[in-house]
Amino acid sequence: MDLKEEINKRLENIVNQYQSGKVKDAMRYSLLAPGKRLRPIIMLNVIRSYGLDCLKYIDIACAIEMIHTYSLIHDDLPGMDNDDLRRGRLTCHKQFDEATAILAGDALLNEAVNVILNVDIGDSLKLRVIKELYQASGANGMIYGQQQDLYFEERNASLEDLKNIHKYKTGAMIAASFTIGSLIANPKDIEKWREFGYNLGLAFQIQDDILDVTGNEELLGKKVGSDVQNHKSTYVTLLGIEKSEAYIQELFEDCYSRLYGMKINHGLILELLQTILKRVN
Amino acid sequence: MDLKEEINKRLENIVNQYQSGKVKDAMRYSLLAPGKRLRPIIMLNVIRSYGLDCLKYIDIACAIEMIHTYSLIHDDLPGMDNDDLRRGRLTCHKQFDEATAILAGDALLNEAVNVILNVDIGDSLKLRVIKELYQASGANGMIYGQQQDLYFEERNASLEDLKNIHKYKTGAMIAASFTIGSLIANPKDIEKWREFGYNLGLAFQIQDDILDVTGNEELLGKKVGSDVQNHKSTYVTLLGIEKSEAYIQELFEDCYSRLYGMKINHGLILELLQTILKRVN
Repeated sequence: MDLKEEINKRLENIVNQYQSGKVKDAMRYSLLAPGKRLRPIIMLNVIRSYGLDCLKYIDIACAIEMIHTYSLIHDDLPGMDNDDLRRGRLTCHKQFDEATAILAGDALLNEAVNVILNVDIGDSLKLRVIKELYQASGANGMIYGQQQDLYFEERNASLEDLKNIHKYKTGAMIAASFTIGSLIANPKDIEKWREFGYNLGLAFQIQDDILDVTGNEELLGKKVGSDVQNHKSTYVTLLGIEKSEAYIQELFEDCYSRLYGMKINHGLILELLQTILKRVN
Repeated sequence: MDLKEEINKRLENIVNQYQSGKVKDAMRYSLLAPGKRLRPIIMLNVIRSYGLDCLKYIDIACAIEMIHTYSLIHDDLPGMDNDDLRRGRLTCHKQFDEATAILAGDALLNEAVNVILNVDIGDSLKLRVIKELYQASGANGMIYGQQQDLYFEERNASLEDLKNIHKYKTGAMIAASFTIGSLIANPKDIEKWREFGYNLGLAFQIQDDILDVTGNEELLGKKVGSDVQNHKSTYVTLLGIEKSEAYIQELFEDCYSRLYGMKINHGLILELLQTILKRVN
Protein backbone atom coordinates (compact mmCIF):
# COMPACT_ATOMS: atom_id res chain seq x y z
CA MET A 1 0.00 0.00 0.00
CA ASP A 2 1.42 3.36 -1.02
CA LEU A 3 0.42 5.45 2.00
CA LYS A 4 1.89 8.63 0.57
CA GLU A 5 -0.28 8.36 -2.51
CA GLU A 6 -3.37 7.65 -0.40
CA ILE A 7 -2.61 10.69 1.76
CA ASN A 8 -2.11 12.93 -1.27
CA LYS A 9 -5.40 11.77 -2.78
CA ARG A 10 -7.28 12.57 0.43
CA LEU A 11 -5.57 15.94 0.83
CA GLU A 12 -6.70 16.81 -2.70
CA ASN A 13 -10.29 15.82 -1.85
CA ILE A 14 -10.23 17.78 1.37
CA VAL A 15 -9.00 20.98 -0.24
CA ASN A 16 -11.69 20.73 -2.94
CA GLN A 17 -14.37 21.49 -0.32
CA TYR A 18 -13.38 25.12 0.11
CA GLN A 19 -14.73 28.22 -1.59
CA SER A 20 -12.86 29.15 -4.77
CA GLY A 21 -10.25 31.86 -4.70
CA LYS A 22 -6.62 32.60 -4.00
CA VAL A 23 -6.70 31.21 -0.47
CA LYS A 24 -7.96 27.83 -1.67
CA ASP A 25 -5.37 27.86 -4.48
CA ALA A 26 -2.62 28.65 -1.96
CA MET A 27 -3.82 25.93 0.42
CA ARG A 28 -3.72 23.41 -2.41
CA TYR A 29 -0.34 24.66 -3.67
CA SER A 30 1.37 24.25 -0.30
CA LEU A 31 -0.49 21.16 0.83
CA LEU A 32 0.18 19.22 -2.37
CA ALA A 33 3.78 20.34 -2.86
CA PRO A 34 6.06 17.29 -2.85
CA GLY A 35 6.59 16.59 0.85
CA LYS A 36 7.70 13.51 2.73
CA ARG A 37 4.32 13.19 4.53
CA LEU A 38 6.37 11.96 7.46
CA ARG A 39 3.90 12.85 10.21
CA PRO A 40 0.78 11.29 8.64
CA ILE A 41 2.78 8.21 7.61
CA ILE A 42 3.99 7.82 11.20
CA MET A 43 0.44 8.01 12.54
CA LEU A 44 -0.91 5.48 10.03
CA ASN A 45 1.98 3.06 10.59
CA VAL A 46 1.53 3.09 14.35
CA ILE A 47 -2.06 1.97 13.77
CA ARG A 48 -0.92 -0.70 11.29
CA SER A 49 1.72 -1.93 13.72
CA TYR A 50 -1.15 -3.07 15.98
CA GLY A 51 -2.70 -5.01 13.11
CA LEU A 52 -5.51 -2.55 12.50
CA ASP A 53 -6.78 -1.10 9.22
CA CYS A 54 -5.30 2.39 9.14
CA LEU A 55 -7.16 3.81 6.13
CA LYS A 56 -10.25 4.38 8.23
CA TYR A 57 -8.27 7.09 9.99
CA ILE A 58 -6.56 8.67 7.00
CA ASP A 59 -8.37 11.99 7.42
CA ILE A 60 -6.86 12.37 10.88
CA ALA A 61 -3.44 11.81 9.31
CA CYS A 62 -4.32 14.49 6.74
CA ALA A 63 -5.26 16.90 9.54
CA ILE A 64 -1.78 16.44 11.01
CA GLU A 65 -0.24 17.24 7.62
CA MET A 66 -2.48 20.32 7.31
CA ILE A 67 -1.18 21.67 10.61
CA HIS A 68 2.41 20.89 9.62
CA THR A 69 1.91 22.69 6.30
CA TYR A 70 0.35 25.75 7.95
CA SER A 71 3.41 25.99 10.20
CA LEU A 72 5.74 25.88 7.18
CA ILE A 73 3.76 28.60 5.35
CA HIS A 74 3.83 30.94 8.35
CA ASP A 75 7.49 30.16 9.21
CA ASP A 76 8.50 31.14 5.68
CA LEU A 77 6.78 34.57 5.82
CA PRO A 78 8.92 37.73 5.49
CA GLY A 79 8.12 38.61 9.12
CA MET A 80 9.46 35.21 10.24
CA ASP A 81 12.28 33.36 8.38
CA ASN A 82 11.71 35.12 5.05
CA ASP A 83 12.42 32.08 2.88
CA ASP A 84 11.95 31.85 -0.89
CA LEU A 85 12.02 28.09 -1.40
CA ARG A 86 10.16 25.23 0.25
CA ARG A 87 9.65 21.65 -0.89
CA GLY A 88 11.44 22.54 -4.12
CA ARG A 89 9.00 25.31 -5.04
CA LEU A 90 8.58 28.99 -4.33
CA THR A 91 7.26 29.56 -0.82
CA CYS A 92 3.55 30.33 -0.56
CA HIS A 93 3.95 34.11 -0.16
CA LYS A 94 6.37 34.21 -3.13
CA GLN A 95 4.03 32.24 -5.38
CA PHE A 96 0.94 34.20 -4.26
CA ASP A 97 1.31 37.16 -1.91
CA GLU A 98 1.80 37.73 1.78
CA ALA A 99 -1.86 38.27 2.67
CA THR A 100 -2.86 35.08 0.86
CA ALA A 101 -0.10 33.09 2.60
CA ILE A 102 -1.19 34.35 6.03
CA LEU A 103 -4.81 33.41 5.30
CA ALA A 104 -3.92 30.04 3.75
CA GLY A 105 -1.93 29.15 6.88
CA ASP A 106 -4.78 30.28 9.12
CA ALA A 107 -7.23 28.28 7.02
CA LEU A 108 -5.19 25.06 7.24
CA LEU A 109 -4.87 25.38 11.03
CA ASN A 110 -8.60 26.12 11.27
CA GLU A 111 -9.81 23.43 8.89
CA ALA A 112 -7.72 20.61 10.37
CA VAL A 113 -10.17 20.48 13.27
CA ASN A 114 -13.15 20.38 10.91
CA VAL A 115 -11.59 17.48 9.04
CA ILE A 116 -11.28 15.51 12.28
CA LEU A 117 -14.85 16.41 13.28
CA ASN A 118 -16.10 14.66 10.15
CA VAL A 119 -14.28 11.38 10.81
CA ASP A 120 -16.54 8.46 11.70
CA ILE A 121 -15.20 7.50 15.16
CA GLY A 122 -16.72 7.75 18.63
CA ASP A 123 -17.21 11.18 20.19
CA SER A 124 -14.89 10.55 23.11
CA LEU A 125 -12.00 9.33 20.93
CA LYS A 126 -12.55 12.24 18.54
CA LEU A 127 -12.22 14.73 21.39
CA ARG A 128 -9.04 13.06 22.66
CA VAL A 129 -7.51 13.14 19.17
CA ILE A 130 -8.30 16.84 18.77
CA LYS A 131 -6.80 17.57 22.19
CA GLU A 132 -3.63 15.61 21.49
CA LEU A 133 -3.13 17.42 18.19
CA TYR A 134 -3.99 20.97 19.24
CA GLN A 135 -1.98 20.73 22.46
CA ALA A 136 1.03 19.67 20.39
CA SER A 137 0.65 22.47 17.85
CA GLY A 138 -0.37 25.20 20.31
CA ALA A 139 1.04 27.84 22.64
CA ASN A 140 2.55 25.21 24.93
CA GLY A 141 3.83 23.14 22.00
CA MET A 142 5.03 23.94 18.47
CA ILE A 143 4.25 27.66 18.68
CA TYR A 144 6.29 27.95 21.88
CA GLY A 145 9.16 26.16 20.11
CA GLN A 146 8.96 28.57 17.20
CA GLN A 147 9.08 31.52 19.61
CA GLN A 148 12.16 30.09 21.34
CA ASP A 149 13.81 29.44 17.98
CA LEU A 150 13.34 33.10 17.06
CA TYR A 151 14.54 34.19 20.52
CA PHE A 152 17.81 32.31 20.11
CA GLU A 153 18.43 33.70 16.64
CA GLU A 154 19.87 36.75 18.37
CA ARG A 155 21.56 34.90 21.23
CA ASN A 156 23.95 32.00 21.72
CA ALA A 157 22.09 28.84 22.66
CA SER A 158 23.53 26.04 24.81
CA LEU A 159 22.92 22.38 24.00
CA GLU A 160 20.21 22.37 26.66
CA ASP A 161 18.56 25.39 25.02
CA LEU A 162 18.68 23.69 21.62
CA LYS A 163 17.23 20.49 23.00
CA ASN A 164 14.39 22.48 24.53
CA ILE A 165 13.68 24.43 21.33
CA HIS A 166 13.57 21.23 19.29
CA LYS A 167 11.44 19.41 21.85
CA TYR A 168 8.67 21.90 21.19
CA LYS A 169 9.33 23.12 17.64
CA THR A 170 9.75 19.69 15.99
CA GLY A 171 9.32 17.12 18.73
CA ALA A 172 5.81 17.98 19.82
CA MET A 173 4.19 17.38 16.42
CA ILE A 174 6.27 14.27 15.66
CA ALA A 175 5.44 12.88 19.10
CA ALA A 176 1.76 13.67 18.51
CA SER A 177 1.86 11.72 15.25
CA PHE A 178 2.85 8.66 17.28
CA THR A 179 0.52 9.32 20.22
CA ILE A 180 -2.53 9.91 18.02
CA GLY A 181 -1.86 6.57 16.32
CA SER A 182 -1.60 5.01 19.77
CA LEU A 183 -4.78 6.74 21.04
CA ILE A 184 -6.65 5.05 18.21
CA ALA A 185 -4.97 1.63 18.33
CA ASN A 186 -3.95 1.14 21.96
CA PRO A 187 -4.23 4.09 24.38
CA LYS A 188 -2.30 2.20 27.09
CA ASP A 189 0.94 2.61 25.13
CA ILE A 190 0.55 6.33 24.62
CA GLU A 191 3.27 7.55 26.99
CA LYS A 192 5.78 5.06 25.55
CA TRP A 193 5.13 6.43 22.08
CA ARG A 194 5.40 9.98 23.35
CA GLU A 195 8.95 9.42 24.64
CA PHE A 196 9.76 7.52 21.47
CA GLY A 197 8.45 10.41 19.36
CA TYR A 198 10.33 13.10 21.25
CA ASN A 199 13.61 11.22 20.80
CA LEU A 200 12.99 10.65 17.12
CA GLY A 201 11.97 14.30 16.72
CA LEU A 202 15.24 15.41 18.28
CA ALA A 203 17.22 13.10 15.99
CA PHE A 204 15.25 14.47 13.04
CA GLN A 205 16.08 18.04 13.96
CA ILE A 206 19.80 17.30 14.40
CA GLN A 207 19.68 15.75 10.92
CA ASP A 208 18.20 19.03 9.70
CA ASP A 209 21.12 20.91 11.24
CA ILE A 210 23.55 18.58 9.48
CA LEU A 211 21.67 18.74 6.15
CA ASP A 212 21.84 22.52 6.31
CA VAL A 213 25.64 22.12 6.09
CA THR A 214 26.15 18.97 4.01
CA GLY A 215 22.83 18.71 2.15
CA ASN A 216 22.04 19.05 -1.53
CA GLU A 217 19.90 22.10 -2.22
CA GLU A 218 18.04 20.37 -5.04
CA LEU A 219 17.20 17.28 -3.03
CA LEU A 220 16.28 19.34 0.03
CA GLY A 221 14.08 21.70 -1.95
CA LYS A 222 15.24 24.64 0.15
CA LYS A 223 18.31 26.80 0.64
CA VAL A 224 21.26 25.29 2.52
CA GLY A 225 23.81 27.15 4.62
CA SER A 226 21.26 29.50 6.13
CA ASP A 227 22.15 28.55 9.72
CA VAL A 228 25.82 29.49 9.25
CA GLN A 229 24.83 32.62 7.35
CA ASN A 230 22.54 33.65 10.21
CA HIS A 231 25.19 32.79 12.87
CA LYS A 232 22.66 30.44 14.39
CA SER A 233 23.60 28.01 17.17
CA THR A 234 22.92 24.46 15.98
CA TYR A 235 24.03 20.98 16.98
CA VAL A 236 26.65 21.24 14.22
CA THR A 237 28.11 24.55 15.44
CA LEU A 238 28.12 23.33 19.05
CA LEU A 239 29.21 19.68 18.61
CA GLY A 240 30.58 19.38 15.08
CA ILE A 241 29.23 16.98 12.47
CA GLU A 242 30.84 13.80 13.79
CA LYS A 243 29.54 14.13 17.34
CA SER A 244 26.13 15.22 16.04
CA GLU A 245 25.95 12.06 13.93
CA ALA A 246 26.95 9.96 16.92
CA TYR A 247 24.20 11.58 18.95
CA ILE A 248 21.65 10.77 16.22
CA GLN A 249 22.85 7.15 16.32
CA GLU A 250 22.41 7.11 20.10
CA LEU A 251 18.86 8.48 19.84
CA PHE A 252 17.98 5.86 17.24
CA GLU A 253 19.39 3.09 19.47
CA ASP A 254 17.14 4.37 22.23
CA CYS A 255 14.17 4.22 19.85
CA TYR A 256 14.97 0.62 18.87
CA SER A 257 15.11 -0.54 22.46
CA ARG A 258 11.83 1.21 23.31
CA LEU A 259 10.27 -0.40 20.26
CA TYR A 260 11.05 -3.92 21.38
CA GLY A 261 9.31 -3.20 24.69
CA MET A 262 5.97 -2.99 22.86
CA LYS A 263 3.75 -5.77 21.51
CA ILE A 264 3.42 -4.60 17.93
CA ASN A 265 4.60 -5.47 14.43
CA HIS A 266 8.10 -4.03 14.87
CA GLY A 267 9.01 -4.36 11.19
CA LEU A 268 6.71 -1.54 10.09
CA ILE A 269 8.20 0.94 12.54
CA LEU A 270 11.78 -0.25 11.94
CA GLU A 271 11.29 0.34 8.22
CA LEU A 272 10.08 3.84 8.99
CA LEU A 273 13.09 4.50 11.23
CA GLN A 274 15.46 3.28 8.53
CA THR A 275 13.91 5.67 6.00
CA ILE A 276 14.35 8.57 8.41
CA LEU A 277 17.92 7.56 9.35
CA LYS A 278 18.97 7.58 5.69
CA ARG A 279 17.09 10.67 4.66
CA VAL A 280 18.69 13.24 2.36
CA ASN A 281 15.82 15.74 2.53
CA MET B 1 -24.21 40.84 36.38
CA ASP B 2 -21.37 42.53 34.49
CA LEU B 3 -20.75 40.00 31.74
CA LYS B 4 -17.89 41.99 30.24
CA GLU B 5 -16.01 41.92 33.52
CA GLU B 6 -16.63 38.19 33.91
CA ILE B 7 -15.36 37.57 30.38
CA ASN B 8 -12.24 39.66 30.98
CA LYS B 9 -11.47 37.78 34.20
CA ARG B 10 -11.75 34.42 32.46
CA LEU B 11 -9.67 35.58 29.48
CA GLU B 12 -6.94 36.61 31.94
CA ASN B 13 -7.06 33.17 33.59
CA ILE B 14 -6.97 31.40 30.26
CA VAL B 15 -3.93 33.29 29.00
CA ASN B 16 -2.06 32.57 32.24
CA GLN B 17 -1.84 28.88 31.28
CA TYR B 18 0.66 29.43 28.51
CA GLN B 19 4.45 29.21 28.54
CA SER B 20 6.13 32.53 29.32
CA GLY B 21 7.56 34.63 26.54
CA LYS B 22 6.73 37.23 23.94
CA VAL B 23 3.94 35.20 22.34
CA LYS B 24 2.10 34.87 25.64
CA ASP B 25 2.65 38.59 26.34
CA ALA B 26 1.27 39.44 22.89
CA MET B 27 -1.73 37.14 23.34
CA ARG B 28 -2.52 38.84 26.64
CA TYR B 29 -1.92 42.33 25.20
CA SER B 30 -4.37 41.88 22.34
CA LEU B 31 -6.89 39.72 24.17
CA LEU B 32 -7.20 42.09 27.13
CA ALA B 33 -7.14 45.33 25.14
CA PRO B 34 -10.36 47.25 25.78
CA GLY B 35 -12.86 45.63 23.41
CA LYS B 36 -16.63 45.55 23.31
CA ARG B 37 -16.70 41.74 23.85
CA LEU B 38 -19.72 41.82 21.57
CA ARG B 39 -19.52 38.23 20.34
CA PRO B 40 -19.13 36.53 23.76
CA ILE B 41 -21.80 38.80 25.24
CA ILE B 42 -24.18 37.80 22.44
CA MET B 43 -23.58 34.10 23.10
CA LEU B 44 -24.09 34.42 26.84
CA ASN B 45 -27.22 36.53 26.46
CA VAL B 46 -28.83 34.05 24.10
CA ILE B 47 -28.38 31.40 26.81
CA ARG B 48 -29.78 33.76 29.46
CA SER B 49 -32.75 34.60 27.25
CA TYR B 50 -33.87 30.96 27.68
CA GLY B 51 -33.68 31.33 31.46
CA LEU B 52 -30.47 29.30 31.83
CA ASP B 53 -27.35 30.08 33.85
CA CYS B 54 -24.88 31.32 31.26
CA LEU B 55 -21.73 31.44 33.41
CA LYS B 56 -21.29 27.69 33.11
CA TYR B 57 -20.49 28.32 29.44
CA ILE B 58 -18.29 31.39 29.81
CA ASP B 59 -15.18 29.62 28.50
CA ILE B 60 -16.94 28.92 25.22
CA ALA B 61 -17.72 32.64 25.00
CA CYS B 62 -14.01 33.32 25.66
CA ALA B 63 -13.04 30.95 22.85
CA ILE B 64 -15.19 33.02 20.46
CA GLU B 65 -13.39 36.18 21.62
CA MET B 66 -10.02 34.46 21.15
CA ILE B 67 -10.83 33.68 17.53
CA HIS B 68 -12.13 37.21 16.96
CA THR B 69 -8.91 38.64 18.46
CA TYR B 70 -6.68 36.39 16.34
CA SER B 71 -8.48 37.66 13.24
CA LEU B 72 -7.86 41.29 14.27
CA ILE B 73 -4.13 40.64 14.92
CA HIS B 74 -3.62 38.99 11.53
CA ASP B 75 -5.80 41.56 9.68
CA ASP B 76 -3.63 44.36 11.06
CA LEU B 77 -0.34 42.82 9.85
CA PRO B 78 1.79 44.74 7.31
CA GLY B 79 1.06 42.04 4.71
CA MET B 80 -2.69 42.55 5.22
CA ASP B 81 -4.22 45.95 6.20
CA ASN B 82 -1.01 47.33 7.76
CA ASP B 83 -2.74 49.15 10.62
CA ASP B 84 -1.02 50.89 13.54
CA LEU B 85 -3.93 51.28 15.95
CA ARG B 86 -6.51 48.84 17.29
CA ARG B 87 -8.77 49.08 20.32
CA GLY B 88 -7.07 52.36 21.20
CA ARG B 89 -3.60 50.83 21.41
CA LEU B 90 -0.74 50.05 19.08
CA THR B 91 -1.53 46.99 16.98
CA CYS B 92 0.13 43.77 18.09
CA HIS B 93 2.95 43.83 15.53
CA LYS B 94 3.69 47.49 16.36
CA GLN B 95 3.82 46.83 20.10
CA PHE B 96 5.86 43.63 19.68
CA ASP B 97 7.11 42.58 16.25
CA GLU B 98 5.69 40.92 13.18
CA ALA B 99 6.84 37.37 13.98
CA THR B 100 5.36 37.59 17.48
CA ALA B 101 2.06 38.93 16.11
CA ILE B 102 1.81 36.10 13.56
CA LEU B 103 2.49 33.51 16.28
CA ALA B 104 0.16 35.15 18.82
CA GLY B 105 -2.67 35.06 16.25
CA ASP B 106 -1.91 31.44 15.41
CA ALA B 107 -1.84 30.60 19.11
CA LEU B 108 -5.23 32.21 19.80
CA LEU B 109 -6.85 30.35 16.90
CA ASN B 110 -5.21 27.12 18.06
CA GLU B 111 -5.95 27.48 21.76
CA ALA B 112 -9.61 28.40 21.35
CA VAL B 113 -10.33 24.76 20.59
CA ASN B 114 -8.40 23.61 23.65
CA VAL B 115 -10.42 25.99 25.83
CA ILE B 116 -13.66 24.44 24.58
CA LEU B 117 -12.28 20.91 25.05
CA ASN B 118 -11.89 21.65 28.77
CA VAL B 119 -15.47 22.84 29.30
CA ASP B 120 -17.62 20.49 31.38
CA ILE B 121 -20.45 19.69 28.93
CA GLY B 122 -21.40 16.48 27.14
CA ASP B 123 -19.14 15.17 24.36
CA SER B 124 -21.74 15.45 21.64
CA LEU B 125 -22.60 19.09 22.46
CA LYS B 126 -18.91 19.94 22.72
CA LEU B 127 -18.28 18.59 19.22
CA ARG B 128 -21.24 20.52 17.81
CA VAL B 129 -20.00 23.74 19.43
CA ILE B 130 -16.50 23.28 17.99
CA LYS B 131 -17.96 22.59 14.55
CA GLU B 132 -20.23 25.63 14.63
CA LEU B 133 -17.32 27.88 15.64
CA TYR B 134 -14.61 26.54 13.34
CA GLN B 135 -16.94 26.40 10.34
CA ALA B 136 -17.76 30.07 10.92
CA SER B 137 -14.13 31.12 11.27
CA GLY B 138 -12.71 28.89 8.54
CA ALA B 139 -12.04 28.72 4.82
CA ASN B 140 -15.77 28.73 4.01
CA GLY B 141 -16.50 31.44 6.59
CA MET B 142 -14.54 34.40 7.98
CA ILE B 143 -11.32 33.61 6.12
CA TYR B 144 -13.21 33.50 2.81
CA GLY B 145 -14.73 36.89 3.68
CA GLN B 146 -11.31 38.32 4.41
CA GLN B 147 -10.04 37.05 1.06
CA GLN B 148 -12.99 38.63 -0.76
CA ASP B 149 -12.45 41.89 1.12
CA LEU B 150 -8.83 41.98 -0.09
CA TYR B 151 -9.93 41.03 -3.61
CA PHE B 152 -12.29 43.98 -3.81
CA GLU B 153 -9.71 46.42 -2.51
CA GLU B 154 -8.44 46.63 -6.06
CA ARG B 155 -11.83 46.44 -7.80
CA ASN B 156 -15.18 48.16 -7.63
CA ALA B 157 -17.68 46.15 -5.63
CA SER B 158 -21.44 46.16 -6.21
CA LEU B 159 -23.92 46.15 -3.33
CA GLU B 160 -24.34 42.41 -3.86
CA ASP B 161 -20.56 41.92 -3.66
CA LEU B 162 -20.41 43.95 -0.44
CA LYS B 163 -23.26 42.01 1.11
CA ASN B 164 -21.47 38.78 0.26
CA ILE B 165 -18.12 39.97 1.69
CA HIS B 166 -19.80 41.06 4.92
CA LYS B 167 -21.85 37.87 5.20
CA TYR B 168 -18.62 35.93 5.55
CA LYS B 169 -16.16 38.44 6.98
CA THR B 170 -18.34 39.75 9.83
CA GLY B 171 -21.63 37.90 9.60
CA ALA B 172 -20.36 34.36 10.02
CA MET B 173 -18.76 34.94 13.44
CA ILE B 174 -21.62 37.12 14.71
CA ALA B 175 -24.15 34.53 13.54
CA ALA B 176 -22.07 31.78 15.23
CA SER B 177 -22.19 33.71 18.50
CA PHE B 178 -25.99 33.44 18.36
CA THR B 179 -26.11 29.86 17.08
CA ILE B 180 -23.66 28.55 19.68
CA GLY B 181 -25.83 30.08 22.41
CA SER B 182 -28.82 28.40 20.79
CA LEU B 183 -27.02 25.02 20.43
CA ILE B 184 -26.52 25.08 24.20
CA ALA B 185 -29.91 26.44 25.24
CA ASN B 186 -32.33 25.26 22.55
CA PRO B 187 -30.95 23.64 19.39
CA LYS B 188 -34.37 23.75 17.70
CA ASP B 189 -34.10 27.51 17.28
CA ILE B 190 -30.63 27.45 15.73
CA GLU B 191 -31.58 28.35 12.15
CA LYS B 192 -33.73 31.26 13.36
CA TRP B 193 -30.77 32.66 15.27
CA ARG B 194 -28.51 32.14 12.28
CA GLU B 195 -30.67 34.35 10.05
CA PHE B 196 -31.02 36.83 12.89
CA GLY B 197 -27.21 36.88 13.34
CA TYR B 198 -26.46 37.35 9.66
CA ASN B 199 -28.81 40.34 9.49
CA LEU B 200 -27.37 41.89 12.61
CA GLY B 201 -23.83 41.23 11.33
CA LEU B 202 -24.65 43.05 8.10
CA ALA B 203 -26.10 46.00 10.03
CA PHE B 204 -22.98 46.00 12.20
CA GLN B 205 -20.71 46.13 9.17
CA ILE B 206 -22.66 48.97 7.55
CA GLN B 207 -22.28 50.84 10.85
CA ASP B 208 -18.53 50.27 10.54
CA ASP B 209 -18.59 51.81 7.07
CA ILE B 210 -20.45 54.84 8.44
CA LEU B 211 -18.19 55.14 11.50
CA ASP B 212 -15.17 55.16 9.19
CA VAL B 213 -16.56 58.43 7.80
CA THR B 214 -18.34 60.04 10.74
CA GLY B 215 -16.68 58.34 13.72
CA ASN B 216 -14.43 59.75 16.40
CA GLU B 217 -10.92 58.31 16.18
CA GLU B 218 -10.46 58.39 19.94
CA LEU B 219 -13.72 56.59 20.69
CA LEU B 220 -13.16 54.10 17.89
CA GLY B 221 -9.60 53.35 18.95
CA LYS B 222 -8.51 53.11 15.32
CA LYS B 223 -7.88 55.35 12.34
CA VAL B 224 -10.92 56.76 10.51
CA GLY B 225 -11.15 57.68 6.84
CA SER B 226 -9.11 54.70 5.68
CA ASP B 227 -11.86 53.44 3.34
CA VAL B 228 -11.98 56.74 1.43
CA GLN B 229 -8.19 56.95 1.43
CA ASN B 230 -7.99 53.44 -0.05
CA HIS B 231 -10.77 54.17 -2.60
CA LYS B 232 -12.64 51.23 -1.16
CA SER B 233 -16.24 50.46 -2.13
CA THR B 234 -18.42 50.60 1.00
CA TYR B 235 -22.11 51.01 1.74
CA VAL B 236 -21.40 54.72 2.25
CA THR B 237 -19.68 55.19 -1.11
CA LEU B 238 -22.39 53.21 -2.91
CA LEU B 239 -25.54 54.40 -1.07
CA GLY B 240 -24.54 57.51 0.86
CA ILE B 241 -24.90 57.90 4.62
CA GLU B 242 -28.64 58.52 4.74
CA LYS B 243 -29.64 55.44 2.75
CA SER B 244 -27.09 53.34 4.63
CA GLU B 245 -28.67 54.41 7.91
CA ALA B 246 -32.12 53.59 6.58
CA TYR B 247 -30.88 50.15 5.57
CA ILE B 248 -29.49 49.57 9.09
CA GLN B 249 -32.90 50.55 10.48
CA GLU B 250 -34.57 48.07 8.14
CA LEU B 251 -32.23 45.26 9.21
CA PHE B 252 -32.93 46.01 12.86
CA GLU B 253 -36.69 45.98 12.22
CA ASP B 254 -36.25 42.55 10.69
CA CYS B 255 -34.33 41.41 13.79
CA TYR B 256 -37.09 42.67 16.08
CA SER B 257 -39.79 40.78 14.22
CA ARG B 258 -37.74 37.57 14.20
CA LEU B 259 -37.14 38.01 17.92
CA TYR B 260 -40.83 38.06 18.74
CA GLY B 261 -41.24 34.77 16.89
CA MET B 262 -39.21 33.01 19.61
CA LYS B 263 -40.19 31.96 23.11
CA ILE B 264 -37.45 33.69 25.05
CA ASN B 265 -36.88 36.62 27.40
CA HIS B 266 -36.98 39.27 24.65
CA GLY B 267 -35.80 42.06 26.94
CA LEU B 268 -32.24 40.76 27.18
CA ILE B 269 -31.78 40.60 23.43
CA LEU B 270 -33.59 43.91 22.83
CA GLU B 271 -31.21 45.58 25.26
CA LEU B 272 -28.29 44.11 23.34
CA LEU B 273 -29.73 45.34 20.02
CA GLN B 274 -30.19 48.84 21.45
CA THR B 275 -26.55 48.94 22.56
CA ILE B 276 -25.42 47.94 19.08
CA LEU B 277 -27.79 50.36 17.35
CA LYS B 278 -26.38 53.29 19.33
CA ARG B 279 -22.75 52.26 19.19
CA VAL B 280 -20.05 54.86 18.56
CA ASN B 281 -17.19 52.37 18.39
